[in-house]
Amino acid sequence: MHHVEEILVPTSGSGLHEFTSRVVDIVHATGIVCGCCTVFVRHTSASLVIQENADPSARRDMENWLNRLAPEGDALYTHVEEGPDDMPAHIKSLLTDVSLSIPVLDGRLALGTWQGIYLWEHRRARSSRAVVVSISGDPAA
Amino acid sequence: MHHVEEILVPTSGSGLHEFTSRVVDIVHATGIVCGCCTVFVRHTSASLVIQENADPSARRDMENWLNRLAPEGDALYTHVEEGPDDMPAHIKSLLTDVSLSIPVLDGRLALGTWQGIYLWEHRRARSSRAVVVSISGDPAA
Amino acid sequence: MHHVEEILVPTSGSGLHEFTSRVVDIVHATGIVCGCCTVFVRHTSASLVIQENADPSARRDMENWLNRLAPEGDALYTHVEEGPDDMPAHIKSLLTDVSLSIPVLDGRLALGTWQGIYLWEHRRARSSRAVVVSISGDPAA
Repeated sequence: MHHVEEILVPTSGSGLHEFTSRVVDIVHATGIVCGCCTVFVRHTSASLVIQENADPSARRDMENWLNRLAPEGDALYTHVEEGPDDMPAHIKSLLTDVSLSIPVLDGRLALGTWQGIYLWEHRRARSSRAVVVSISGDPAA
Repeated sequence: MHHVEEILVPTSGSGLHEFTSRVVDIVHATGIVCGCCTVFVRHTSASLVIQENADPSARRDMENWLNRLAPEGDALYTHVEEGPDDMPAHIKSLLTDVSLSIPVLDGRLALGTWQGIYLWEHRRARSSRAVVVSISGDPAA
Repeated sequence: MHHVEEILVPTSGSGLHEFTSRVVDIVHATGIVCGCCTVFVRHTSASLVIQENADPSARRDMENWLNRLAPEGDALYTHVEEGPDDMPAHIKSLLTDVSLSIPVLDGRLALGTWQGIYLWEHRRARSSRAVVVSISGDPAA
């Protein structure tokens, strides 16, 4: 059994935006108990990560660390006509993920206790991003 | 329905080499309308990325940025007998992707408008790379 | 056909720990000859990579390179209460992979000759990590 659907994830500016519950609900609605779920972002200036969903300071440190590694205004950039946050956005997207695949075990996404699914918005002004969720597996007998 | 095949992607030296149309054609030939496609590179000194297919300056900046982050000749390297471009190649492979999974929605790869699939050749002298494309899903009713 | 199971990978301290043969055995036991295998780590301070399994100096250089890029004691970190190795662990996890998808071709994982599957332990004191292996595909006719 295969199910694929597109969702929009609101982003309200740059940073990490959790949407774990959206994916959990889609998996649950399929009735699949054993299989795999793939999450894919249809953009090159936003990306996906699975990270700690407990202490927000860990996510803030990750954002600050990545902003320092790929800052705006780097003299190396020649691709500047889409704004100072565009080229850093492509680089941050490169270093993180465009797709994530998460097994479905006993009817549940096999996320660890502290794992959340995040859309990382790398532009300042975007308001939502298109994400496609694909699930394949066996439904309950 | 499952389909797996290996293709060779010509690389003609280091840098980003697009092969989106090869993957699109394989997916189309299967007749699958709903499912998921995985692309996998069988090497550790080349990698895969999905990035902007519009302005080549964005890709050039990415290459230059990553070359600066992981340059040849770093005094840290002890693994040098395979040439000065080998250890940077492994590191660049590490920071990008060995596999990409892209949903198939309504019979098409669910890539965004500006997304292309690239093989990133990290060695100077390689001429082609082995990539495996795996698709699973439901064909049209 | 779908098969999902959880395994524990012993880590014995930080660094790269190969577990390729564990995944190979699981794929072989399913009898699937054509499909795809996803490996997923249920933690945010350990990660997965596919890298060269030949010369250990390449892996050691990678570890040293990443340790230098994301060192302990960075003044940027505010998330410090879980120990000096925790925030670097999240960053290293971010830059590498939480999931890997590897096609199954002719009854075998389609790894290249020099590719091994590694769990990268980023904490000093952990002794094992939970990894979920999911396989879907067609068994032999």
